[in-house]
Amino acid sequence: MRVMMSTQSVSSELAKFIATYRWDDVPAHVRHESKRTLLNFFSVALSACFDSTIEKAATVYGKFSCAPQATVIGRNQRMDMLNAAALNTMGANVFDFDDTHFPTIIHPTSPVAPPLLAWAETHKISGQDFLLSLVLGMEAECRIGNAVSPYHYARGWHITSTCGVFGAAMAIGRLIGLTEQQLVWALGNASAQASGLVETLGTMAKSVSMGNAARNGMLSALLAQQNFDGPAQPLEGVRGFLNVTADHADPMSIVGEFGERWEVLNNAYKPYPCGVVLNPVIEACLALSTNEALLAQGLDAIERIELTGHSLLRQRTDRPAIQTGRESQVSAQHAVAVALVRGRAGLAEFSDEAVRDATLKPLGAKVCFIDDDSYTVDSAKVVILMRGLTKIEVKVDVARGAVARPLTDRDIEDKLRALCVYGKSGVDPEPLIAAVWALDQSKDAGQLMKLVSGNAR
Amino acid sequence: MRVMMSTQSVSSELAKFIATYRWDDVPAHVRHESKRTLLNFFSVALSACFDSTIEKAATVYGKFSCAPQATVIGRNQRMDMLNAAALNTMGANVFDFDDTHFPTIIHPTSPVAPPLLAWAETHKISGQDFLLSLVLGMEAECRIGNAVSPYHYARGWHITSTCGVFGAAMAIGRLIGLTEQQLVWALGNASAQASGLVETLGTMAKSVSMGNAARNGMLSALLAQQNFDGPAQPLEGVRGFLNVTADHADPMSIVGEFGERWEVLNNAYKPYPCGVVLNPVIEACLALSTNEALLAQGLDAIERIELTGHSLLRQRTDRPAIQTGRESQVSAQHAVAVALVRGRAGLAEFSDEAVRDATLKPLGAKVCFIDDDSYTVDSAKVVILMRGLTKIEVKVDVARGAVARPLTDRDIEDKLRALCVYGKSGVDPEPLIAAVWALDQSKDAGQLMKLVSGNAR
Repeated sequence: MRVMMSTQSVSSELAKFIATYRWDDVPAHVRHESKRTLLNFFSVALSACFDSTIEKAATVYGKFSCAPQATVIGRNQRMDMLNAAALNTMGANVFDFDDTHFPTIIHPTSPVAPPLLAWAETHKISGQDFLLSLVLGMEAECRIGNAVSPYHYARGWHITSTCGVFGAAMAIGRLIGLTEQQLVWALGNASAQASGLVETLGTMAKSVSMGNAARNGMLSALLAQQNFDGPAQPLEGVRGFLNVTADHADPMSIVGEFGERWEVLNNAYKPYPCGVVLNPVIEACLALSTNEALLAQGLDAIERIELTGHSLLRQRTDRPAIQTGRESQVSAQHAVAVALVRGRAGLAEFSDEAVRDATLKPLGAKVCFIDDDSYTVDSAKVVILMRGLTKIEVKVDVARGAVARPLTDRDIEDKLRALCVYGKSGVDPEPLIAAVWALDQSKDAGQLMKLVSGNAR
Repeated sequence: MRVMMSTQSVSSELAKFIATYRWDDVPAHVRHESKRTLLNFFSVALSACFDSTIEKAATVYGKFSCAPQATVIGRNQRMDMLNAAALNTMGANVFDFDDTHFPTIIHPTSPVAPPLLAWAETHKISGQDFLLSLVLGMEAECRIGNAVSPYHYARGWHITSTCGVFGAAMAIGRLIGLTEQQLVWALGNASAQASGLVETLGTMAKSVSMGNAARNGMLSALLAQQNFDGPAQPLEGVRGFLNVTADHADPMSIVGEFGERWEVLNNAYKPYPCGVVLNPVIEACLALSTNEALLAQGLDAIERIELTGHSLLRQRTDRPAIQTGRESQVSAQHAVAVALVRGRAGLAEFSDEAVRDATLKPLGAKVCFIDDDSYTVDSAKVVILMRGLTKIEVKVDVARGAVARPLTDRDIEDKLRALCVYGKSGVDPEPLIAAVWALDQSKDAGQLMKLVSGNAR
């Protein structure tokens, strides 16, 4: 099959799939996953609506909004479609608590769902058309990411931003009914706008490229609708996106097995707002936080905390001297201490406030690492050594949040419930949860946004 | 000097120069060049105001304009600052007839002047502040281009788009009075938005990245004004713009000799809307078009036309079978024929209409190339062999439009006059010419835009 396709344009093949694939052909488990990822999207977007990055961006972007067309999630504020899409993407990703496509480390839903939601608010779109566009846009985004991985991210490209613009373009392109040729042009317009650097991670500038991915992907499709043309091979051309941004691109991974292989099934949702290598450690420490022996002796009796895991655990998270909430998201010392002391591991536990909590640093200082590459990155063992030689241990073989042990539907609902509270939008999660699970029955997907508008402050 | 600076941040050094350099210290010839490049900018922007690319973009961008803040050149139309800046940049560059910075092949003025003009229309800015911001923005843009050349363009990056966003950010950043720290953040916000691919050349998609360079550079500065932060070393950082987009970047070429070396002096203006290697050939053919011997015998008596020049002339322009005006801009066969037949070489001579002119192809078919690398790319010899062994030749040693033989002030004025007519905006070039030459005396640079608004259609 690949040999036959190699004589055709990868961009055209992708466009054909996006233009013609039907909801009726989407497998049931893929349909369900599209709702799960949307629910997870709302949870993270609602967590960050008053974060300082979003506040500043809303100030500037708000000055250039042409009309109150679409909801800025949680802020009781409306902007035009492009600006609302940009801000909602920024919000969903600002804490890096959004979904993760494991083969590429793309956060696929954040740049794709917001333009669709903005469009759905201004045009009556069925829930099925909405979910189909979402899952097709994510498919395009992640397949293009596969084609440039791992070189692209390693070189320094912020892959969610650079590939997200294609996902948004294809999602909107499908939703507004672009032809195959117009979809190729939309890919071309997106290729001209693909940007974002790893150097910006940890700063607000990252959010600019994230917002652009959504905004400019949407714009790419709207331009193509006017027959604003582009190159024939924007992806695989000699000077196209793949060759320019990757030394060893694999164009053929973009095509083939359409409708059979689904990248959304390689997508996972984070239980904790941390680097995913910390998942098993945090899970173990949360279990230990209610351990009777430990409660009986008290945390002061802890002499040492041994973390045994894959060497990546130590390499990425051995950070004893952190200063900010953002740094705490990749600090094993902080994660262990806060999970043991507070018995929780949400955004509040990885905030600037939590880092200033004087009780945590002395406990974190007792953490030591034991590298053992027989562990996977989804597994770890935590051993607590107490005064008087008591030893308590918990081993996690496959952490919650791994592709092999995904969050349950209930887990995602609870994540939404918790993050609604954290974000202080006043949004009631229950009607939203019900509406997302029933979205494929809805005649008007834009109604969702009435549920996430938020209270006036 | 370089050794001392290497311990400092290149981004910070650049920001310091942008924040602190004064108009009083700008050398007189640099001041004058800043006006020449602005006049050339207006000429090309006024040529393209109703081109189909601009029409389509204006349709889509116009739907998202929040207020009629700033003039879209020649169209009797106003949009908000960001959208007007984008459209004016697109227009100035759509025919590739704008200025050329020879070391990098950046078209430096197109992404930098439009955001400044949009700002000047909405805020009272002196002509001196305007010209200083223009020349500083161009300096930043071209120095960053130097640092990534030649690898960056060769790899497939559309260097005017990718570096233009930094130029626009620095120009606006200076104009609105950002601090050094805020300018570094503006560079960071720009680094997250640098995009544009060579693959899109010859299509409308190129114009998207050009418009973004202006729009997003302006946005980068406006975000930085709100202390929207970015990385400390957006240019020279390990995963910063230079390392990610060039294999052999030279960060130090960005700093040093500030106020002494001026990249605007390496910038040239095109006499013809063609690849610059055609300049000497066209100049020779225009001279031949009035040659008495040739006029006496008639063009039908031509048996052969020999072009002797650097091998790049043949490599880049041996295109006998062209179909579109755009292709004709890099076709020696077309350029020779149209210059001989019409005695002109303006945009009308490199249009789709001209390519359909049946008299030109047979004449162009008589062109042959003689490679001689003792010629520079600015020189060529054209020999016409007539029936009966008459031989007429013209040799051009340094073509008009080369950095070594720049267009005169009068040449640029005449280019503006011709392109005003071509673009059909109804703009009167004479008051504009006078206003640009006197701009350093103006208390309100935004008044310029009243002169280029154009008539209602």
